[in-house]
Amino acid sequence: MNRINLAEKLSLFSTRWDPKIVAELNGQQVKLVKIEGEFVWHHHEHEDELFLVVQGGFQMQFRDRNVDLSEGDLIVVPRGVEHRPVAARECSILLFEPATTMNTGSAGGDRTVERPGRI
Amino acid sequence: MNRINLAEKLSLFSTRWDPKIVAELNGQQVKLVKIEGEFVWHHHEHEDELFLVVQGGFQMQFRDRNVDLSEGDLIVVPRGVEHRPVAARECSILLFEPATTMNTGSAGGDRTVERPGRI
Repeated sequence: MNRINLAEKLSLFSTRWDPKIVAELNGQQVKLVKIEGEFVWHHHEHEDELFLVVQGGFQMQFRDRNVDLSEGDLIVVPRGVEHRPVAARECSILLFEPATTMNTGSAGGDRTVERPGRI
Repeated sequence: MNRINLAEKLSLFSTRWDPKIVAELNGQQVKLVKIEGEFVWHHHEHEDELFLVVQGGFQMQFRDRNVDLSEGDLIVVPRGVEHRPVAARECSILLFEPATTMNTGSAGGDRTVERPGRI
């Protein structure tokens, strides 16, 4: 039951595509992630995923359209929907998703973070 | 899968202590609420609750201590823990919590919002 400040937490790491757990509740996790460049196309079989832009902006690409997101914007990607986040410049995002959610979902591969760190 | 902007959503209502649902995922809801003044002491039997300050600041009071929260701060109140949010001035908060969560929890009473609106 402590105060968790997003900017303070974000100052603790600089790695990209490397989600960090900052809180947990009801089997869900709150993570912070810094992204830059293109991620892999993937979907999550069983998990809906929420992205809230904390700093910067990025584009969420779907197979049929793209959605541009800036600070203060959120988007929910339902389970089963293929998506790919792309950021032209560094962007910091808050994720809210089940504790079981793996960053690369269906795609797997070497960008998978099996055990996100806690900060 | 649309962009949801927090400031835009907040501009759609001015009522206090009247949570509005802005997104839903994995049986959880994302709500926005504007608060001012003191709420009722209560706890939630089965739900942990996350508060993220979007604008302004407030104090989360527990029976044994108080935690001051400002923009960009979040706090998780675990199930069973009595709490009371108090805001000296208007404060806008994002809530993440199970869809079953009632604002007044164990306390009930006339400040209960049985069916939060969707915006």
